[in-house]
Amino acid sequence: MSETPYQQLERRFKRLGALGEAEAVLHWDMSAIMPRGGAEARAEQLAELKAVRHSLMTAAETADLIAAAEADADTLAGWQPANFREMKRRWIKATALSEDLVVALSKACSVCETIWRTARADADFGAVRPALEEVLNLTRQAGQAKAEKQGLSLYDALLDDFEPDGRTADIDPVFDALEDFLPDFLGEVLDVQALRPGPILPEGPFPEDAQKALGIQFMEALGFDFDHGRLDISLHPFCGGTPDDVRITTRYDEADFTSSLMGVLHETGHALYERGLPKPWRGQPVGEALGMSMHESQSLLVEMQVCRSKGFLGYAAPIMRDAFKGDLKSGGPAWDQGNLHRLYTRVQPDFIRVDADEVTYPAHVILRYRLERALLEGDMTLNDLPGAWNDGMQKMLGLTPPSDREGCLQDLHWYDGAWGYFPTYTLGAMTAAQLFAAAKKAVPEIEAGIAEGNFKPLFRWLKTNVHGKGSLLTAKQLLIEATGKSLDPEVFKAHLKTRYLA
Amino acid sequence: MSETPYQQLERRFKRLGALGEAEAVLHWDMSAIMPRGGAEARAEQLAELKAVRHSLMTAAETADLIAAAEADADTLAGWQPANFREMKRRWIKATALSEDLVVALSKACSVCETIWRTARADADFGAVRPALEEVLNLTRQAGQAKAEKQGLSLYDALLDDFEPDGRTADIDPVFDALEDFLPDFLGEVLDVQALRPGPILPEGPFPEDAQKALGIQFMEALGFDFDHGRLDISLHPFCGGTPDDVRITTRYDEADFTSSLMGVLHETGHALYERGLPKPWRGQPVGEALGMSMHESQSLLVEMQVCRSKGFLGYAAPIMRDAFKGDLKSGGPAWDQGNLHRLYTRVQPDFIRVDADEVTYPAHVILRYRLERALLEGDMTLNDLPGAWNDGMQKMLGLTPPSDREGCLQDLHWYDGAWGYFPTYTLGAMTAAQLFAAAKKAVPEIEAGIAEGNFKPLFRWLKTNVHGKGSLLTAKQLLIEATGKSLDPEVFKAHLKTRYLA
Repeated sequence: MSETPYQQLERRFKRLGALGEAEAVLHWDMSAIMPRGGAEARAEQLAELKAVRHSLMTAAETADLIAAAEADADTLAGWQPANFREMKRRWIKATALSEDLVVALSKACSVCETIWRTARADADFGAVRPALEEVLNLTRQAGQAKAEKQGLSLYDALLDDFEPDGRTADIDPVFDALEDFLPDFLGEVLDVQALRPGPILPEGPFPEDAQKALGIQFMEALGFDFDHGRLDISLHPFCGGTPDDVRITTRYDEADFTSSLMGVLHETGHALYERGLPKPWRGQPVGEALGMSMHESQSLLVEMQVCRSKGFLGYAAPIMRDAFKGDLKSGGPAWDQGNLHRLYTRVQPDFIRVDADEVTYPAHVILRYRLERALLEGDMTLNDLPGAWNDGMQKMLGLTPPSDREGCLQDLHWYDGAWGYFPTYTLGAMTAAQLFAAAKKAVPEIEAGIAEGNFKPLFRWLKTNVHGKGSLLTAKQLLIEATGKSLDPEVFKAHLKTRYLA
Repeated sequence: MSETPYQQLERRFKRLGALGEAEAVLHWDMSAIMPRGGAEARAEQLAELKAVRHSLMTAAETADLIAAAEADADTLAGWQPANFREMKRRWIKATALSEDLVVALSKACSVCETIWRTARADADFGAVRPALEEVLNLTRQAGQAKAEKQGLSLYDALLDDFEPDGRTADIDPVFDALEDFLPDFLGEVLDVQALRPGPILPEGPFPEDAQKALGIQFMEALGFDFDHGRLDISLHPFCGGTPDDVRITTRYDEADFTSSLMGVLHETGHALYERGLPKPWRGQPVGEALGMSMHESQSLLVEMQVCRSKGFLGYAAPIMRDAFKGDLKSGGPAWDQGNLHRLYTRVQPDFIRVDADEVTYPAHVILRYRLERALLEGDMTLNDLPGAWNDGMQKMLGLTPPSDREGCLQDLHWYDGAWGYFPTYTLGAMTAAQLFAAAKKAVPEIEAGIAEGNFKPLFRWLKTNVHGKGSLLTAKQLLIEATGKSLDPEVFKAHLKTRYLA
């Protein structure tokens, strides 16, 4: 019997998947270990791989197969309808843009990113504004083209690239609720914190080798399998590679191990999601991770919900002390559970998003979400961005950045064409809180396990309810199935109150 | 003005080149650093990349462009005719075999390689003979298909895959001359050697870090640029990556640094060839290295001609001593130039090719060359292989392997489908001797430079005469231009006599 159109699509997407994995490994290599002289040749290799994937995706044959499979869609069963849904999503996105627009946007982003690096150093937003205007215009064109094909609004079409099925209609009420809650809450937290002893930073130096060994020990305890992954160093820590060979990176500061270690645990959360994806669906769109908010929820569940908890830090404190005992007197008040917990839950309003704590982080994200929508939808011009940014920071965190370097120039995202990405950070944090609350309720041993360094009950629940589902459901559906409701700001607020006011 | 067919071919081969480089990086990763659990996914990534390259190469459009460019061939100038010649060679090879034959051969090799691993361990040739028979039959079919398309004999068609334009008519007289020379010469060498003190192996342990630092020091002295390359560890040392990002590997034995170090220097010779390839031709077939014999000549020129010479070891001895002085008393008679030279030029007939010294190595290669030709051309059956192997070893080196493990089971090549490869090792050794003799004659400072650790005069000559030529000339033409004559066994013999009898 010959293959059905859908089966042929599966074969085609398997090829696309293998080429995408090849690209992912080359990206990891570029970011982690490539000598800098290899950059030009690597850019050509990656561009060529992208071109091959694009032409395979946009070939007339793919369109014919999708039309034919659509006609037979009622014969699909099990995970196939979801797979076909994701195939169509990718195909629509790939065919929505003209070759000219793709090239123009890619070039505009490269140009703008280069100018941004200098403009940020010089705190000179005016220097990069024209280049950013070009990126914004082309992003708007691309978004409109996708919006038409997908029947979405402009912003939703851009958001959908990072967060499939993410919609402003779902985000707005959630972010509104947080925005109402946070300013007063932050004040209360700072008042409570002021009454407690300040955290003491353990005193180093902490040799890189010992930090690495400690990171590996916790990674393994969490379930990271070094037969299927690596830990390396890169300037900007990330999780890359492929589900069967998932590679995380960190960077070490010999004066302070705490930040790198928490970074490793964060990336481990991403990695365990990739590793837990359903093996039988490997290579198919349905077998891949859901969008950015679910991915971030998995890193933040491990980092924020688990590893910054008092329970985890009680288990971890003696292991940390042991890791460095050869090199210094790793004892004393800096090394006990209480201090480590105060250190890892310290709240400190600041200008910089990437340094932000759990309480103030949403303010950074909500500000960017409001601003990027206003810019895309034409309610604001780039001339007004620095002022609007500073007003927003003042209103939400009571701070005014000393210059645009600490303001609207701080993040690469917009300058590199990533519009519609920012909300996923806070959606991820809220999703993490909601999943963790449901998991603890469903499986009481989870919390006790964490305090003993036994993470199996937690990851069994995550495997069943999140990792093992791949892209079978939308993020919204998955959350309802796993927790009984869609994203609820009350859960996140409850988590914050328990941790910071109790 | 629109592009000519030849210009379109250049664009197409540039794409093929970029995809080939992507494959090379993924191969390096697989051999050097990939966690073992990534093997299955990596195999799919590589297979898909190969399939993409194959379909780009065998597309009807490629054939049309080649035919059209052929019609305009008199308009090509400079390096273009050579580039077009190499394009055609690749295209003919790619289109000569049916898809079925390619798949069958690839599968047969995988099966046979797996069986061979056990058969070798068990010293049981009979266990792998049927699988090898299948590989041999399919290799013969593939060779015949290519031979017809290229107008070559069966063996020459297979040889041409590894050694473009290499021909048995050129190899036979050269190997005959060596075969006549070596047995008596070996006797003389062993007599002379017996009168000298035996070499002393420096006593370790030699920590891996210190060995690595020493290797890097010599690599940099030879001109290896770590902005365009890396040194890592792998089970089987090799040189991989791409010309702008060339990556060599080694493995360390903490009891004996001398072998790993010489391996690093050998791979550095390969790497410097890749790095010296002409940048303006990057991505085109004419810009790539010549065949295996020229590549091996560059590693052996560095290893055998330069780094095992008394001059180099005089420069290197104090650096070696310094490298390990923190860890042990690296002084005394084992560490002087004379002893290191005796150690690095020790001759010792043995069963195993990869452990062979410079004098006995050709015997291993000539034996395999004779046997593989006889098997391919039907003058011998696989039943007779073990006996014929042992007879040959007895005749050439006066040794009979205790079992087939040390005999016809020792090398992977045939079991993995690499027929026609073996002669390139000894052609490389002879080419190295001939190039080095010509270089020293043309530039007297080369030899003095080596004794002082100044390798610039040597590599300037190699850049001009070998590296910078890419595949502009055939290996034979290049050798004539660089040394005034084609491969001459007398030069290699003279080198051996000077080193081992003087």
